[in-house]
Amino acid sequence: MIETNLPIYYMAVNIASSQFRGIIPPMITPLNNESELDLKGLRNLIEHLIKGGVHGLFILGTTGESTSLPYALRHRLIEETCDIVKGRVPVLVGITDTAVSESLRLAETAKQCCASALVAAPPYYFSLGQPELIEYYEYLADRIPLPLFLYNMPSHTKINIEPDTVEYLSKHEKIIGLKDSSGNTAYFNKLLYKMKDYDDFSLFVGPEEVTAETVMLGGAGGVNGGANMFPRLYVELYSAAVAGDIEKVRDLHDLVMEISTEIYSIGKYGSSYLKGLKCALNLMGLCSGYMSSPLHQFNKEEKDRLEIILKKIQKKIL
Amino acid sequence: MIETNLPIYYMAVNIASSQFRGIIPPMITPLNNESELDLKGLRNLIEHLIKGGVHGLFILGTTGESTSLPYALRHRLIEETCDIVKGRVPVLVGITDTAVSESLRLAETAKQCCASALVAAPPYYFSLGQPELIEYYEYLADRIPLPLFLYNMPSHTKINIEPDTVEYLSKHEKIIGLKDSSGNTAYFNKLLYKMKDYDDFSLFVGPEEVTAETVMLGGAGGVNGGANMFPRLYVELYSAAVAGDIEKVRDLHDLVMEISTEIYSIGKYGSSYLKGLKCALNLMGLCSGYMSSPLHQFNKEEKDRLEIILKKIQKKIL
Amino acid sequence: MIETNLPIYYMAVNIASSQFRGIIPPMITPLNNESELDLKGLRNLIEHLIKGGVHGLFILGTTGESTSLPYALRHRLIEETCDIVKGRVPVLVGITDTAVSESLRLAETAKQCCASALVAAPPYYFSLGQPELIEYYEYLADRIPLPLFLYNMPSHTKINIEPDTVEYLSKHEKIIGLKDSSGNTAYFNKLLYKMKDYDDFSLFVGPEEVTAETVMLGGAGGVNGGANMFPRLYVELYSAAVAGDIEKVRDLHDLVMEISTEIYSIGKYGSSYLKGLKCALNLMGLCSGYMSSPLHQFNKEEKDRLEIILKKIQKKIL
Amino acid sequence: MIETNLPIYYMAVNIASSQFRGIIPPMITPLNNESELDLKGLRNLIEHLIKGGVHGLFILGTTGESTSLPYALRHRLIEETCDIVKGRVPVLVGITDTAVSESLRLAETAKQCCASALVAAPPYYFSLGQPELIEYYEYLADRIPLPLFLYNMPSHTKINIEPDTVEYLSKHEKIIGLKDSSGNTAYFNKLLYKMKDYDDFSLFVGPEEVTAETVMLGGAGGVNGGANMFPRLYVELYSAAVAGDIEKVRDLHDLVMEISTEIYSIGKYGSSYLKGLKCALNLMGLCSGYMSSPLHQFNKEEKDRLEIILKKIQKKIL
Repeated sequence: MIETNLPIYYMAVNIASSQFRGIIPPMITPLNNESELDLKGLRNLIEHLIKGGVHGLFILGTTGESTSLPYALRHRLIEETCDIVKGRVPVLVGITDTAVSESLRLAETAKQCCASALVAAPPYYFSLGQPELIEYYEYLADRIPLPLFLYNMPSHTKINIEPDTVEYLSKHEKIIGLKDSSGNTAYFNKLLYKMKDYDDFSLFVGPEEVTAETVMLGGAGGVNGGANMFPRLYVELYSAAVAGDIEKVRDLHDLVMEISTEIYSIGKYGSSYLKGLKCALNLMGLCSGYMSSPLHQFNKEEKDRLEIILKKIQKKIL
Repeated sequence: MIETNLPIYYMAVNIASSQFRGIIPPMITPLNNESELDLKGLRNLIEHLIKGGVHGLFILGTTGESTSLPYALRHRLIEETCDIVKGRVPVLVGITDTAVSESLRLAETAKQCCASALVAAPPYYFSLGQPELIEYYEYLADRIPLPLFLYNMPSHTKINIEPDTVEYLSKHEKIIGLKDSSGNTAYFNKLLYKMKDYDDFSLFVGPEEVTAETVMLGGAGGVNGGANMFPRLYVELYSAAVAGDIEKVRDLHDLVMEISTEIYSIGKYGSSYLKGLKCALNLMGLCSGYMSSPLHQFNKEEKDRLEIILKKIQKKIL
Repeated sequence: MIETNLPIYYMAVNIASSQFRGIIPPMITPLNNESELDLKGLRNLIEHLIKGGVHGLFILGTTGESTSLPYALRHRLIEETCDIVKGRVPVLVGITDTAVSESLRLAETAKQCCASALVAAPPYYFSLGQPELIEYYEYLADRIPLPLFLYNMPSHTKINIEPDTVEYLSKHEKIIGLKDSSGNTAYFNKLLYKMKDYDDFSLFVGPEEVTAETVMLGGAGGVNGGANMFPRLYVELYSAAVAGDIEKVRDLHDLVMEISTEIYSIGKYGSSYLKGLKCALNLMGLCSGYMSSPLHQFNKEEKDRLEIILKKIQKKIL
Repeated sequence: MIETNLPIYYMAVNIASSQFRGIIPPMITPLNNESELDLKGLRNLIEHLIKGGVHGLFILGTTGESTSLPYALRHRLIEETCDIVKGRVPVLVGITDTAVSESLRLAETAKQCCASALVAAPPYYFSLGQPELIEYYEYLADRIPLPLFLYNMPSHTKINIEPDTVEYLSKHEKIIGLKDSSGNTAYFNKLLYKMKDYDDFSLFVGPEEVTAETVMLGGAGGVNGGANMFPRLYVELYSAAVAGDIEKVRDLHDLVMEISTEIYSIGKYGSSYLKGLKCALNLMGLCSGYMSSPLHQFNKEEKDRLEIILKKIQKKIL
């Protein structure tokens, strides 16, 4: 990289919107407590991910516990992350919020830190109709300084971004793609079909359980939580799927399903995925396992169970 | 105003928890735009409500568009409201948020401004189980400087606060009541029955359509949106219900149902209630009709329709 | 009644539609096994109800496990019930089904047995829109030989019969009322308000927890499961509510809430109400406690717990 | 089997459970009106499907409007279908019902007509818990004379058959597989992973939009509505997916997505898929387009739009 007057790590990753592809982990947020980042853990985790070959980082998503974090911490996380990444991979920043003004402030910080793009799920308190959703995204897109990915997350936001809505919004120059975390690939395949003539619109899936199949059929990649733990595995799965190497896809997909089935199923209620993931990262020595309220980390017994499972899986992968 | 060392309007309303009763309007938030209060409107509205005889004010609820407002504005609203009210009626402050740290900061401001109590709905992004909900409320209640009302709002938060959960939480000294906005009085009556031996626990309903009946059967009152427009009407309905004056209850309830049916049914999607209410307040000359994103105020045609309806209703009430 | 050649118990109950009022228990279906009525229990139960002063009987509703019963048994139940009742009170017959042809066959049997009216919830397999619901009810109403009550049961049918739909359908001469089992009295009060100028349209509630309040505000009565056990109590509650005798209403409502809270909360999952009710009737010696698949009667331990509760309540009521 | 006087086409298709694979269209039910089969259409359609190379037929599913059909017609359809098929392909018979006795009667008819297997979704009126679901399926499986496929259809039945429930039930000797119509392949892939060591358990998907990907990753095949129209296309897609011929899979999947996007999106509400499909079959001259209540066939304008679309698609496929 060439010396300039600008600090080198503040140079924007110059990347055409259609070039967002591959594995972009939704990074967990290493925390010491409700209001303090685990900065050492953050550095460890980012280096671990970049070394693992990921194609980008997505911070402040659901996996990053974004909505549970105080605002000052969210802004700080953007700054620290961009500072550590130093342009080596694109950084996508979640700005999902019920208050559009706060989303815009996060977007501003992302721009100043030279992040690459923004990601926004629908506002998740009031129940909206599709026309209201369109108005919301247009309002947002008109005012943000970076390109935007829509984020479909109906289980959490109570609204599905319908295919017609996606097509309509894709015409806005700032809106360059969508991440779908519904797990419903019947829906996702409709999006792929509908958008196939729009060159610069990238469609990602969230759940790692469907990355293999969606990439084989034209998806842009996976924003997969498990890639926090084993970035290389997910990157290889992505590459095999792009290459159409079905045998390899099947083998690697099988490992991903083992991770999903074993690591994400300890503990009860809706968030066992997130709890298992963060606990595993802690067990791997990468960062603190603290979870922000209203979620809680595993108790001792759950953690012990996970440790055994994790070791078994690590042997197969590493 | 008498000179003292402490500004008189900062003196706390000294009120035992069991004394929260009556009509406590969920105040709409008068706005000039996404990030600025309509201060003149705020003053008008508060004087209108106090003159109307309301038993308290609830700010930063769903009707106050709390989750859509930037944080600085939420804190500012608490300060301005308490400053205007000057202890004449109790002020309840909504601190509902997905980030518990932000809820705690709002609680701190409420305390400093001498508000009377806090109100918190469950965090509304992650899907929680009842035990997680209990842990959340205990965490919150342990750290707040004012008494707390639970706020049941399942259509928006995706979780119902189950009767057993309410009973369990009621034992926490800070938790003094619940506001139920489900509209489901089968549920509400179960709460009333379960909690009847807990003297200091107050059960309010949100929807004005059920205030009459729930007060007749032991409810503490109504946090009714329509009381923003016609406070006197709702206060009289409450008094008639407490007195068991059924004839009067039926007549006043009929007016409330006319308001609900006529004013809250213009416009589409989930929030026609809120849009109709804020537009009516604007038509009455009380404050700005600006609605914060993701909601939008009525268009010209809808506003004209509402104006005709409103005039017809005003004639009956005033 | 005038002597005729027709057996007296086959004479239709001649009753104007507006005259359906009061407590009309949704009768449980006494069963020996999956396909056989407990006829002795049926006779006991009907005499118990009529002696208790109920204003009618509703068979083949949700409480009657209608959708779980084989068709031959449903037809048989209509015949036996009408034969036992012999016109002493109106008999309402549930014809809810996903196959409209089977609903029509049940309606035909009801007519032949001189039942008074029919009750139909929306078909509950396909997800319908309101216009499809209107078409469905019109199709049905055009072909039935008896007047029809709509039956709102959104938790089971996945669709709410919207107030506008009710108003539209009420214009059909065969459609004379609605039973609402949503528990949502905000919705029910909107119906009451909307339909108050339609003289011959009766609005009943299902959940006994809301009978008191809805009757005080103009409801026609309650189709209350608990009236299977204690018909007199519910009839007296209804009378007190009609008379506006609030003190008495409060006392009796309290007993109903005790029944609801104590008897319907043993056992898990959605149907603890139904399981508790049928078990209690069995414990009272009225009929068999057999429940048809997919529900199951209580196990020994649950039954023992219920017995103690039931005795305590019986002492207060009898 | 011993030589008998029974015609050879009544001999059971002798097929090991693990051999159910491939494209098994959920056959629409050709109807003249609410209670009469279109027998000529039925014959045409079955010959069309067998000529198209399908691996089996599934009658009386959601696509067959099973729950809307009178019982006599359901039994008749089983008889006629088996009589026409004459053992050329396996016939799977839907016995989904809220009344288990009626399911058992349908199963008996299926056995007598030498059908190959049964298919049952959960009972869809009462809300059940997973343990209740297990009890239900065990009760059913213990009493049926043919092997059974579970049928996951949460949007219609209000319950998801959880992976643990599937694993538990798979140990019952009569339960040999599952058809998943959720569209959620994150769920489906968990099932594939969980069940991979159970040799004789077949996992099918319903939505044709996900057949390609699920077969590539180990699924047994597709119960795809579109195969009623174009059986050959879906069979070829299945074969290409089994062979891992990704290029061919992508091309054929694209055609399936065009069918899905164009043919199933006319008309409103939940059932545009079913309405479009049945209307297309009518336009192709295969059978009557009559839909049983509560669904309705397209109006003239919708039918005309579909005709143009269908011709365009037929040109690409045939």
